[in-house]
Amino acid sequence: LSALLVRQLAVIGCGLIGGSFALALKRRAVVGRVLGYSPSAGSVQAAQRIGAIDMGADSIAAAARGADLVLLAVPVAATASVLSELRPAAAAGALLIDVGSTKADVAAAAIAVLGENAARFVPCHPIAGKASAGVQHAEATLFDGRTVAITPLDANQIDELDRARAIWESTGAQVRTMNAATHDAAMAAVSHLPHLIAFAYMQGLLAQDDAADVLALAGPGFRDFSRIAAGDPVLWRDVLLTNRAEVLRRLQHFRSALQQAEALIAAGDAAALQALIAECAEARAAWPAGSR
Amino acid sequence: LSALLVRQLAVIGCGLIGGSFALALKRRAVVGRVLGYSPSAGSVQAAQRIGAIDMGADSIAAAARGADLVLLAVPVAATASVLSELRPAAAAGALLIDVGSTKADVAAAAIAVLGENAARFVPCHPIAGKASAGVQHAEATLFDGRTVAITPLDANQIDELDRARAIWESTGAQVRTMNAATHDAAMAAVSHLPHLIAFAYMQGLLAQDDAADVLALAGPGFRDFSRIAAGDPVLWRDVLLTNRAEVLRRLQHFRSALQQAEALIAAGDAAALQALIAECAEARAAWPAGSR
Repeated sequence: LSALLVRQLAVIGCGLIGGSFALALKRRAVVGRVLGYSPSAGSVQAAQRIGAIDMGADSIAAAARGADLVLLAVPVAATASVLSELRPAAAAGALLIDVGSTKADVAAAAIAVLGENAARFVPCHPIAGKASAGVQHAEATLFDGRTVAITPLDANQIDELDRARAIWESTGAQVRTMNAATHDAAMAAVSHLPHLIAFAYMQGLLAQDDAADVLALAGPGFRDFSRIAAGDPVLWRDVLLTNRAEVLRRLQHFRSALQQAEALIAAGDAAALQALIAECAEARAAWPAGSR
Repeated sequence: LSALLVRQLAVIGCGLIGGSFALALKRRAVVGRVLGYSPSAGSVQAAQRIGAIDMGADSIAAAARGADLVLLAVPVAATASVLSELRPAAAAGALLIDVGSTKADVAAAAIAVLGENAARFVPCHPIAGKASAGVQHAEATLFDGRTVAITPLDANQIDELDRARAIWESTGAQVRTMNAATHDAAMAAVSHLPHLIAFAYMQGLLAQDDAADVLALAGPGFRDFSRIAAGDPVLWRDVLLTNRAEVLRRLQHFRSALQQAEALIAAGDAAALQALIAECAEARAAWPAGSR
C-alpha cells in the first residue's frame, strides 16, 4: 500500500534507541523486514518479544547482509569495530547511519574504517531519550517531535543525505543539519555536562551516611533533576571521554557560577541571590520545552 | 452530605501551592468557604478565576477572620510577619499550618510570634511542586501520592496534629512526622542542593557566548535536569539562605564527587568512570520514582 522506505533494516544494538527506531518505522509501515543483533542474547530476545525486530542474527555481519539500511545503535566507542565487522557483509548500496551522542569521533571512525566508501555512512544523532535504558522501554513514539542532528561527512552526497533525512522524518523527528564540531560543543553544554553533574550529585549523595533516609524524602524535584543519572554506564563513559575537551571546558563555566552562588549564600546577600535565581528562572521559562 | 473538615479556609499566599491546596480540598468537598489573600491583586483574581478561592480579602487579617484553618503559603522568610498580622484576627480555635520548604526557621518564627499560643501552629511541608510557579498552574491533584512532612512543635498536642494530618490526607497526600532538623538536613540534600546546582548550571550556560544556539539543541535530558531552575526566585532565595549551613555542607560532598569524576575524565580512566556511573545509575534506578 505504501512505498517501503526501507526494504530490510539491520539494527546493530538492540537497546532503547535501536528498538524505538524500528518500532517507529513499523508504526508508519515504511519498513519491510527487521533483523537485529546485540552482544546480549537477552536483548535480542526482548527486541523480538516487543515486535521491534522480526528476527535475531548471530553476528553483526549476518544482521547486515541483505539490508538496505543499517542502524548502528551502540556506544560511540564501538563504532569503528562495528563498521569493520559489517563492511564485508553490507550490500554496496546499503545506507549506514548511527545514533551516537558525539559526532566528530564517529565521523573519524567511519572515514578510518570505510575509506573511500565512507560516503554511504551518514552520522546522525536523535536528541531523544528516557529515564530507563534497555529495549524493553522502547517506544514507537520516542522520536515524535524530537530533533535529529545530521552532521554530514565531506564525502556524503545529496542522495544519501536526503535518504537519511526521509527515514528520520518518517520516525516523527525533525532533522537539523550542522557540522560535527558545532554539534559536539552544543551537546557538551546541554547534555553531557548535565549528565556529569547528575552523576556527581548522586555520588555525593551516596557518600553520605544518611543517603537512604534522605532519598526516602525526595520528591518530584529530585526525580526530574536526577533522572539522567540513571543513564547507561558504558554509553555515558564513552560520551564523556570522547567529548572530554568540550565537557571539561563547559564544566569550568558551571564551576564559576557555582562558586559565585555559594559566595552569595555564605555572605547572606539576599538581593544578589534573588537576582541570580530570577535570571535563571526567566531563561529556563523562555526555553520552548513544550515543543520537545 | 460529607462532614466538612474545614468550614472556612484562609489561603495566605495565592500561588501554586496555596491554590492547589484549596482545589484539592474542594475536589473532596471537605471545605466550605475559601478566602484568599496575596500582596498581588492579580494572583487573588487568578485564584478566584480558577475556582481555588471563593473570595479575595484585602488584608491578611481580613482573610483570617472567621477561618477555622489558615494556610500560610508564602516564602519562608515571610512567616513571622504573616503570623504577626493574622494573630489578632484569627479565631482562638483556628488551626494554622504552613507549607515552607524549611522547618526549623518556621518553628522558631511561630514560637517567637505566637508565644504560648504556638500550639495552634503545626509546621508542614508538602513535598510537591511542578515546573511553573503561580496560581494559574494550580492543580487539585498536585498532592496525590506525595509526602507531606509534619514537624511538630513541642507545644503541639495530639488534637492539632491529628487535624493537620487528616486535612493533608484529604488532599491525597501521605503524612510523615519527623523533627525539623532531620527534615531540613534531608531537604538540603535532595531538594535545596539540586536547586542550587540547577541555578548554577543555568547561570554557567547563560554566561557562554553560544547560549542561545546550544539551548536550541537541548532535548529531554536538559528539560528534566533544568526544570527546577525555573523555581520562584523569592521562595528559593529564602530557602537557600535559611538552610544555608546544611546546603553548604552538602555542597562539599557534591564538589568532591565532581572533582573525582573530572579527574577520571581528564585521566581517561574508562574503567573507573564506568564504575562510578554504574553506581549512580543503580542507586537512581532503585529509587521508587513511580510512587512519587
